[in-house]
Amino acid sequence: MSGQVEFKGYAMTDASNWSDFKVVSFEPKKFEETDVEIAITHCGVCASDVHSLCQDWGQARLPLIAGHEIVGKVTRVGSKVTGIKVGDRAGVGAQVSSCLQCRECSEDYETYCQNLIWTYNHQYSDGIQTQGGYSTAIRANERFVFPVPDGVSSADAASMFCGGLTVYSPLVSNGCGPGKRVGVVGIGGLGHYAILFAKALGAEVYAFTHSASKDEDIKKMGADHIIHTSDPDFAKPYARKLDIIISTRNEASSMPLSQFLSTLYVHGKFVAVGLPAAGDPFPAIQPTSFIRNGSFFGSSHLGSKKECVEMLKLAAEKNIKPWIEELPMKDVKKAVEGVKNGNAKYRYVLVQDLVPVA
Amino acid sequence: MSGQVEFKGYAMTDASNWSDFKVVSFEPKKFEETDVEIAITHCGVCASDVHSLCQDWGQARLPLIAGHEIVGKVTRVGSKVTGIKVGDRAGVGAQVSSCLQCRECSEDYETYCQNLIWTYNHQYSDGIQTQGGYSTAIRANERFVFPVPDGVSSADAASMFCGGLTVYSPLVSNGCGPGKRVGVVGIGGLGHYAILFAKALGAEVYAFTHSASKDEDIKKMGADHIIHTSDPDFAKPYARKLDIIISTRNEASSMPLSQFLSTLYVHGKFVAVGLPAAGDPFPAIQPTSFIRNGSFFGSSHLGSKKECVEMLKLAAEKNIKPWIEELPMKDVKKAVEGVKNGNAKYRYVLVQDLVPVA
Repeated sequence: MSGQVEFKGYAMTDASNWSDFKVVSFEPKKFEETDVEIAITHCGVCASDVHSLCQDWGQARLPLIAGHEIVGKVTRVGSKVTGIKVGDRAGVGAQVSSCLQCRECSEDYETYCQNLIWTYNHQYSDGIQTQGGYSTAIRANERFVFPVPDGVSSADAASMFCGGLTVYSPLVSNGCGPGKRVGVVGIGGLGHYAILFAKALGAEVYAFTHSASKDEDIKKMGADHIIHTSDPDFAKPYARKLDIIISTRNEASSMPLSQFLSTLYVHGKFVAVGLPAAGDPFPAIQPTSFIRNGSFFGSSHLGSKKECVEMLKLAAEKNIKPWIEELPMKDVKKAVEGVKNGNAKYRYVLVQDLVPVA
Repeated sequence: MSGQVEFKGYAMTDASNWSDFKVVSFEPKKFEETDVEIAITHCGVCASDVHSLCQDWGQARLPLIAGHEIVGKVTRVGSKVTGIKVGDRAGVGAQVSSCLQCRECSEDYETYCQNLIWTYNHQYSDGIQTQGGYSTAIRANERFVFPVPDGVSSADAASMFCGGLTVYSPLVSNGCGPGKRVGVVGIGGLGHYAILFAKALGAEVYAFTHSASKDEDIKKMGADHIIHTSDPDFAKPYARKLDIIISTRNEASSMPLSQFLSTLYVHGKFVAVGLPAAGDPFPAIQPTSFIRNGSFFGSSHLGSKKECVEMLKLAAEKNIKPWIEELPMKDVKKAVEGVKNGNAKYRYVLVQDLVPVA
């Protein structure tokens, strides 16, 4: 069955004007029998989009259509696809392909595949450039297409596919659950998801935020404790309390890392999922910061399809509602500038306006 | 029963001559009903002793008797002590006390107790200074006294109580066993133990050493692979191979940390147990080094009594023989200078010569 969809989107065409967009048509990947094609209805705006548009991580391939928090209606499925059919609602996150043959891919670590392909600003082996979700349609390998269950709206689901999954994966892979104490550093798009999911998983949540400006929101999200990191002694009352910290901060070198580590219980883990600009490393590691409690520093990359399906099930069962602001897709400039300036409360979701939505 | 032992040892009395020792008498801790007293027969020489004597980690309390790899014969046990009796062989490592009441102490994390007391260069609440094992006798809380099983000689057991346990603990707590691939960085006293224990636990062992000078030894220790880090591309053939790396290197800032991290499989752990001098931090953390494989960097501090008992059982069952050179205790200068200069192959064990051994 052919989707007969049109492929066009809001693209950055001049890297010196990172937040100016023009509607351009693009050539999608060649459709394969393991692919799913989606007519996009919604796309969340992620800080990664801003980093990519601003070339913080390297050069942009122009024209660049960003967006990797995609939801839409399935318009075409390959003959080898299972579990997804035309007309279903489904999503795509920050990755559209992997080799599906390596150890990582066979152990539900496909987001760590060394031959992965990003949703945008990347290319397939035949040279076709990937283009993201500020657009009308996308094709992706079924492993990177996630069915959206009843009980989760498309607008709510969109930002779960990067922002949500990026924090859900390290929470569950590091044992978040009843009886655990979870710290969340930086209460923005990812941080607000970390609070929502950690609470839904049964943990006690400690939100670390710079000042009191978001306190009311953080309480409503369900955090049990709020700690203001503007206090130079913020960490002292929480020594050895936490089992896991999910840090969503995008600034690294200014991070009071030793203080955060001091709040971890024995063998606790600090997982940094905020990805700073190149040239902004975390502070040098003082071994004494780690030896006192045998703690760990690490990172995590997106989340597997298996975890994504579990996350959506949890979201449906617990009626998890992300805090989003919907905008028509033509307002993408406002959205990306809002993310860059820290104005998102707590995620922008763009709604399709280039083509009619069925 | 009273041990009627004498308390004297080889002390540094002048910090400007770190490797000159004089025999001095000292006052032991007041004997309590949870204490064990040991007449020392052997004491290993640890790099920590050299760091302490050289004041790399802070000021030395003089006179300072170092040594925290202690084995001897039990001469006195308190009325509340269980599982240890007069005449037994027993050992003491780098710690002699903890609060025994906190969460850490109740969960077999007594080496992470915030009120721990070190074996030397520390003091009890009544002001009595702790003195280590380059001496005739020691008293310690039973929690920090480890019975030596038949099948492990006293000379062999000595260096297991710091060098051995310091690598055994992170090996087992991070899942070392059959089917796992374990890297060992730095093949000195701790590194040689990491090879011996990782092999005994059933893992495949990858030894990272600077040059070929120790290759023959490393093969005899049982490592399956030897990698020379003097090759700038040493890490490339081992990308994503390892589950755990135990790093015993004492130099931190010169560590090719990103390259070591690249050899870890998804969520693999780099555990640094070599404790560098203050002012020698590990390189600044580049988040991209961690996000590619979701790896972790951390540390570990000694090991619990529970782990120590398991380690000794394994050593007896598998007939694990550490590579040691025995010296009379009066040759302590030669031993500490040998450790500082990297001449130990692979651990010096001092044999009692200040008093007759029963």
